[in-house]
Amino acid sequence: MTHDTETVQMAHGSGGRLGRELVESVFSSALANNILNRLDDAACLEVQGRLAFTIDGHVVSPLFFPGGDIGRLSVTGTVNDLAVMGATPLYIALGVVIEEGLPLHTLKLITESMRATAGEAKVEVVTGDTKVVERGAADGVFITTSGIGLIPEGVSPSGRGARPGDAVILSGTLGDHGVAILSCRQGLEFDSMLKSDCAPLNSLVREMLAASVRVHAMRDPTRGGLAAALNEIAAASGVAIEIEEETLPVKPSVRAACELFGLDPLLLANEGKLVAFVPEDDAGSVLAAMRSHPLGAEAAIIGRVVDPAAGAGFSGPFRVFARTVLGGLRIIRMPVGEQLPRIC
Amino acid sequence: MTHDTETVQMAHGSGGRLGRELVESVFSSALANNILNRLDDAACLEVQGRLAFTIDGHVVSPLFFPGGDIGRLSVTGTVNDLAVMGATPLYIALGVVIEEGLPLHTLKLITESMRATAGEAKVEVVTGDTKVVERGAADGVFITTSGIGLIPEGVSPSGRGARPGDAVILSGTLGDHGVAILSCRQGLEFDSMLKSDCAPLNSLVREMLAASVRVHAMRDPTRGGLAAALNEIAAASGVAIEIEEETLPVKPSVRAACELFGLDPLLLANEGKLVAFVPEDDAGSVLAAMRSHPLGAEAAIIGRVVDPAAGAGFSGPFRVFARTVLGGLRIIRMPVGEQLPRIC
Repeated sequence: MTHDTETVQMAHGSGGRLGRELVESVFSSALANNILNRLDDAACLEVQGRLAFTIDGHVVSPLFFPGGDIGRLSVTGTVNDLAVMGATPLYIALGVVIEEGLPLHTLKLITESMRATAGEAKVEVVTGDTKVVERGAADGVFITTSGIGLIPEGVSPSGRGARPGDAVILSGTLGDHGVAILSCRQGLEFDSMLKSDCAPLNSLVREMLAASVRVHAMRDPTRGGLAAALNEIAAASGVAIEIEEETLPVKPSVRAACELFGLDPLLLANEGKLVAFVPEDDAGSVLAAMRSHPLGAEAAIIGRVVDPAAGAGFSGPFRVFARTVLGGLRIIRMPVGEQLPRIC
Repeated sequence: MTHDTETVQMAHGSGGRLGRELVESVFSSALANNILNRLDDAACLEVQGRLAFTIDGHVVSPLFFPGGDIGRLSVTGTVNDLAVMGATPLYIALGVVIEEGLPLHTLKLITESMRATAGEAKVEVVTGDTKVVERGAADGVFITTSGIGLIPEGVSPSGRGARPGDAVILSGTLGDHGVAILSCRQGLEFDSMLKSDCAPLNSLVREMLAASVRVHAMRDPTRGGLAAALNEIAAASGVAIEIEEETLPVKPSVRAACELFGLDPLLLANEGKLVAFVPEDDAGSVLAAMRSHPLGAEAAIIGRVVDPAAGAGFSGPFRVFARTVLGGLRIIRMPVGEQLPRIC
């Protein structure tokens, strides 16, 4: 085998035979299903009802990290964006931009990871597109995934849906993904303990909605962390949010890494967690449903939604506050930039 | 204004305030509609029926070229992939990967072009995602668009649908896009005559389907040109195709450029053309409908589908042939690579 057959070449990005060979040897063989196999210009789907439609670009560096890789991330990212809208994710479209010279073996590992993750999430990759750019015009591979899901009758969580009185429930520990990426970049000793939480959340959401269809809002706190997710929902819903600092679940290894690098777990990216806003009356049953699911075993009520007009420090330009261990209120600001670039 | 506010920074790719500001100042302001304005993790759509779903990455270099730019291309590419499946394109999802340092002004021009093209095609950009990578980790901007369309009852063109006896109809001249990109890269004198044909074809397809719902197959011959499109459809449909070389419409300026650079118009990319396979009885009415549309004014019947078992040179490994001016048959092979990289 020559070097040329072991890496992606510019001609693999063509509309010709080599382009087709790349698609068939890497993508359509691994991801095969009745719809993808047609390799038409678009997938033809039978869907009836309210759809959720999303897209997410993935540029994570490095491509492989403890607990995941860009393939797994690109499926979970889109699955989770659909799941937090209450949708049952069904179909994924895959857009890949590859840097010339990427080993074919690397691309196959990534595709195998996508296949496994799609199976886990019970979604199908039904259409795709591949482009190749010259060496130095991209960094390895960028993967953009778009997804379609079906929103069941009677379900309508939205970023605008949080209401005063809602309990704020977090599905598990904070910062695992961000610290895993950081440790991997830094080549840290303790990285065996630090794994990304990267996981598809749709089966967790299904259990939550089975416990209560009155889930008002959900979000997966990826880039910008929980701080950004809470600020976005508070602003969109016109409410304030108070969280109890001591209730926030953080793994000891993640806390240690945060202290070492001066990072705030509230700002770190998560790729397998969600925060939900649930009417107080339903919070117990939703929490119990979450805890009975492997991805929600450490779920906790971390705070509540308050009326910003209710006074007690909740008015003004800020909307998210943490009650500290000492009983004071600390403002949780919308982050400005990102602690770690190319986290997803 | 400082330099920092005039270019895209790494922090613009964050989940924080600067990320939100980039989205609002560039994308959601220009592309505003009731669905996009919600800025939820996914767009919520009401769609009933058979859907077409597609995705297309765009890495064209340069970003701006005669007759178009990456913004226009990224909308037309996805609209046309839906249109050739017979679908009415409805919604677009937009995934953007930006290189740090890209002038904000450039990004705004591209977005404005997307807005104009989406208006022309009557589609809405309903959801999106933005990532930023370091200088040198991408080349300017890559745009991946995913699209959803609705396939009307009774319509089912497919790459597998061509049948012996079908007329092969081409909607207009070959190679305009490929030669426009080439001339732009080479800084050629005659580039004022060479413009990309980049255009959304869905209104043309609507007229064609109004003339006959029996259109068996359609394809937009982009990368790989008409040669790749015909070979793909012939293989998928299990047929052979014979085209008449003298009927192929090519602009004199494109032909001149092809002769100068040794390019074959059959292999050049088009971004506003389609080839259709129509039962002989309906070919006249479909052709008339195409010619009455501005994007099909130069439409022509360029050949016919034949049964590969019918002998007369159509058997064997090759499926696409051109009848030359002298009456001989020339094999039109599936291209191996691409004449021009990063053409779309």
